[in-house]
Amino acid sequence: MEIKVLKNIMGVNDQVAAKNREMLLWSKVFTINIMASPGAGKTSTVLKTIKALKGIKVGVIEGDISSTIDAETVAKTGVPVVQINTGGECHLDANMIQNALNNMPLDEINVLMIENVGNLVCPADFKLGESLKVLIASVPEGDDKPYKYPGMFTAVDVIILNKIDLLPYVKFNMAAFTRAVKGINGKAVIFCISCTTGEGVNAWARWLKKQIKGT
Amino acid sequence: MEIKVLKNIMGVNDQVAAKNREMLLWSKVFTINIMASPGAGKTSTVLKTIKALKGIKVGVIEGDISSTIDAETVAKTGVPVVQINTGGECHLDANMIQNALNNMPLDEINVLMIENVGNLVCPADFKLGESLKVLIASVPEGDDKPYKYPGMFTAVDVIILNKIDLLPYVKFNMAAFTRAVKGINGKAVIFCISCTTGEGVNAWARWLKKQIKGT
Repeated sequence: MEIKVLKNIMGVNDQVAAKNREMLLWSKVFTINIMASPGAGKTSTVLKTIKALKGIKVGVIEGDISSTIDAETVAKTGVPVVQINTGGECHLDANMIQNALNNMPLDEINVLMIENVGNLVCPADFKLGESLKVLIASVPEGDDKPYKYPGMFTAVDVIILNKIDLLPYVKFNMAAFTRAVKGINGKAVIFCISCTTGEGVNAWARWLKKQIKGT
Repeated sequence: MEIKVLKNIMGVNDQVAAKNREMLLWSKVFTINIMASPGAGKTSTVLKTIKALKGIKVGVIEGDISSTIDAETVAKTGVPVVQINTGGECHLDANMIQNALNNMPLDEINVLMIENVGNLVCPADFKLGESLKVLIASVPEGDDKPYKYPGMFTAVDVIILNKIDLLPYVKFNMAAFTRAVKGINGKAVIFCISCTTGEGVNAWARWLKKQIKGT
């Protein structure tokens, strides 16, 4: 009897991600995979972006190990929300998203925002079927993070630096941060925002609208 | 031919962790596994604690996916430092620590601080052979983190809430945070500190000294 060994779990994930991508393209849904450290401001950015994208119909998938706190917050805006509780898993994978898509009214939305588990390492390795990978960094985390988490900083298309309202109160060298990012990911577009004051959110939303229309 | 299936990778890790524990107890080294989100202030807390523990000889193991930034910073204090680069792995495991211990002068130190990879999920599952598990949370991450990362908040003996100097500038409900922690981990001791102002560091160091002497 032959024993088959599943050598490449990433290969399996990529296959399911490709199916998700096909379904999302067919439904004309522009999909964003939002990744960040815990507490960098993923949900706040999702909320601000929904507001700034007025006129564009958004759906949200909330990924958390546990709890429905973020999904409840987002649901108050009236957009369709599906919560994924990973039950311990440190990242979302394509299979979880496939299940979530079956519960999302894809024909009623133009943009799908997927909020990944708060983790600057593992989510970078798992394709979900997204159009765009976005990393939300935040000022209090420090300007050296690109050097310490190069996998994540290399994997993404966009880096949003959140909490710039805290710049006067913490040590953060903006030039050093930008230099570090450019050093490992020359293609990434960088936006600086504050979800508390709203600064920079419109610039990000304007750019995002162009990407959505371009597809 | 029999094919052996390694069912319990955690079991293997636990065995190596037990060996590390034995070696550390034999050497009378009190060992702290420090875990946190990226940028919560692990290295800053290590530096402040080394200073506050004056008279006690400290060694440090720095765990990072990549770079030696933190090890270089800590080495400036004159304590022995070993850097582990996990090369992509999202946590330290007992085997990595076993290798590091072979490069650490255990007979010259009383306390070993292990700075884990910045990750609020995966490191919680891997015993290293430590005497104490410490989580460093930080004010800008928000007060809801115990609900979202229950594995980590349940696994630890001590929770240090860092960056309390930022309390005036961010939304953070201290009572809600404490309630959430107590709800899932009644045994954890909580300390509130600021590595920027130094507030609370001595209280934490005093408590830690008692634990070290008690062993």
